[in-house]
Amino acid sequence: MTETVSGLMAQIADIGRDPVRGGYSRPVHSAAETTLREWFVGAASSRGLEVETDRNGIIWAWDGDPADGAVVTGSHLDSVPGGGAFDGPLGVASALVAFDQLRDRGATGARAIAVFPEEEGSRFGIACLGSRLLSGAIAPEKALALRDPDGLTLAEVARANGLDPTRFGRDPAALRRIGTFLELHVEQGRGLVDLNQPVAIGSSILGHGRWRISIAGEGNHAGTTLMADRHDPMVAAAHVVCMVRSVASGIPDARATVGRLVPVPGGTNVIASRVDLWLDLRHPEDGLTRYLVDEIGTRARELAAEEGCTALVSEESFSPTVDFDPALRDRLSAVLPEAPVLGTGAGHDAGVLKDHVATGMLFVRNPTGVSHAPSEYVEDPDAETGAAALADCLEDLLKDTDRKH
Amino acid sequence: MTETVSGLMAQIADIGRDPVRGGYSRPVHSAAETTLREWFVGAASSRGLEVETDRNGIIWAWDGDPADGAVVTGSHLDSVPGGGAFDGPLGVASALVAFDQLRDRGATGARAIAVFPEEEGSRFGIACLGSRLLSGAIAPEKALALRDPDGLTLAEVARANGLDPTRFGRDPAALRRIGTFLELHVEQGRGLVDLNQPVAIGSSILGHGRWRISIAGEGNHAGTTLMADRHDPMVAAAHVVCMVRSVASGIPDARATVGRLVPVPGGTNVIASRVDLWLDLRHPEDGLTRYLVDEIGTRARELAAEEGCTALVSEESFSPTVDFDPALRDRLSAVLPEAPVLGTGAGHDAGVLKDHVATGMLFVRNPTGVSHAPSEYVEDPDAETGAAALADCLEDLLKDTDRKH
Repeated sequence: MTETVSGLMAQIADIGRDPVRGGYSRPVHSAAETTLREWFVGAASSRGLEVETDRNGIIWAWDGDPADGAVVTGSHLDSVPGGGAFDGPLGVASALVAFDQLRDRGATGARAIAVFPEEEGSRFGIACLGSRLLSGAIAPEKALALRDPDGLTLAEVARANGLDPTRFGRDPAALRRIGTFLELHVEQGRGLVDLNQPVAIGSSILGHGRWRISIAGEGNHAGTTLMADRHDPMVAAAHVVCMVRSVASGIPDARATVGRLVPVPGGTNVIASRVDLWLDLRHPEDGLTRYLVDEIGTRARELAAEEGCTALVSEESFSPTVDFDPALRDRLSAVLPEAPVLGTGAGHDAGVLKDHVATGMLFVRNPTGVSHAPSEYVEDPDAETGAAALADCLEDLLKDTDRKH
Repeated sequence: MTETVSGLMAQIADIGRDPVRGGYSRPVHSAAETTLREWFVGAASSRGLEVETDRNGIIWAWDGDPADGAVVTGSHLDSVPGGGAFDGPLGVASALVAFDQLRDRGATGARAIAVFPEEEGSRFGIACLGSRLLSGAIAPEKALALRDPDGLTLAEVARANGLDPTRFGRDPAALRRIGTFLELHVEQGRGLVDLNQPVAIGSSILGHGRWRISIAGEGNHAGTTLMADRHDPMVAAAHVVCMVRSVASGIPDARATVGRLVPVPGGTNVIASRVDLWLDLRHPEDGLTRYLVDEIGTRARELAAEEGCTALVSEESFSPTVDFDPALRDRLSAVLPEAPVLGTGAGHDAGVLKDHVATGMLFVRNPTGVSHAPSEYVEDPDAETGAAALADCLEDLLKDTDRKH
């Protein structure tokens, strides 16, 4: 029996559908994401892969004995709220199919599929949390104290999911086992559509970060408080959102988004006492990103003061622009000579791991160009082409594993 | 044993505290509000009152046999998210204490305490839902189809709480039993503070309504979508919030608030596909309120179009300006000659019932003037003064009950 990527994707098509937002909501350690993890463990085990969950909740499925310097592929199973079906799971399903093909071809060498938790940062606010913990890019105390929208800490949620929070943190042994990490992912733009190609090789990830802007005012009754007496943080927040758009639009290549905004308490007949909003900001030049954050912060404080409110800007994460390993990139290009080399504006675990191991990415064509939304899409033939390209690349990389170690 | 208002309030001080927003979150039919209802049933039963829950979930506690044309007081136990301790429960606790005092004084005549569900409209979006159902101001089909933020309908929630949704709707028999409805409430402004008085008589309720403005754009990835390619409903919504403030500030006596705003899907790294925001608008002249809603709707559609989005305005509720029964008001003034007569900008069940029965209100001094927020407050001596004033008014009104029916 040969399984296809689209066949595997169909097995999970009903898990974590979001009837309110549309698409899928699969936050890390939710019932939906847990079901997906169980699905992956089952699919990997049925192939004879050895599955283990490490200290940070990363799942590893080994073909053969674990060894240092292995060829690793994989992706993530969590989603943004109301996201598409492919961002994450496509890379996991493609990895399973590619491993089937490697066996069929008789390829040898240490290899594993890794499934990283909280890639999106949708539940605890910091993206690529699994790879950041693994590599030491975030201190475990900081990560474990992060709270989800219900006020639960990562420590509490991890413990409830059978993990031991005291063992979270940098894991040099696990990191050493990765010789090369190659992640396949749905393209999150129209690059391949415009070039009429099914698969691309990743060149770089745009530097990006998240900043929370917390605007505090004076909560009161919407009916009894005169307009002139108000210190309404929602009005200040609205001016900040308009300002962010205006500032970013003036800077070539900058991308600035406020996609999440939470008024507290959030009642219709209540002037908010606080509004929290999150700035997602990206630019190829990290210095310019820093400059923009400072500029936006200064202007936000001014706009808040005009309403008698205060604004506090705090950085939740920042990931510099990443160029993937050039030698690996060239090697992938030799295996896939037709594939264009494209950058991406989206963050990935491959970007976080880049300072520790050779990392690269493959992108699969997305006819809508839309991502993080229900209309994100991959045609079945492209999904199979992507898995075969992944198998070709992994097979080539496996030639080294014995020689290197 | 004589219980005090502050003693009764202390019994419920720990129910429904909101650790995230501060204050209390007691949405209708939540665990917290259900506990409060059970508390009320217990407190009423222990006084020998006959307690029944009617078809619409309104609790009635009768002193003596139910009869048409009775003197009714009461309030509500639900709260806005992160609200204060007094908005609602003060009127319920004061009613219990006033009934104790009426018994001590040997007052006779048919009387009841009514506890109305979903006064705030915080869960299902329409305020005073209990009194609207009772009086036929809302069709039961419309009310039962309302959804809470988790997507549950009122019908589902009511059924889960032991109510029969098929019996919801106008209840002429229950309505006939109310001869006069007098509601005591914490003042939601600084009128009594400025006049240095503990208790006021209500004159009127400002006309008010709620409109949902739903702005639809194009959801996409925050990192991969160029600024020029965006149709971001959050940016359009921000312009709408600024416009609402600007329009309302130019109209004397108008009050316009956006306290609730929900981006969909709401991810940090996601350009929203839709933003829903709620406009709370109030003005003494109902025609001007209508004009303002039209004006805001027109401008919202223009602002949305500038971003390549669309805006849809839908009315969730509208309550015209209410002048309380003048004869009742004069009678209350005769009982409480020191009490000033004050209007309020806040909606109340007494306003909804005004077209069907004689209704009036008493307000108790709030030293902060703040309401719908944790700093809402009533001093203990004022609370007891309020209950005694309520007892005095009810005792006077009870003189009529035999004569009238």
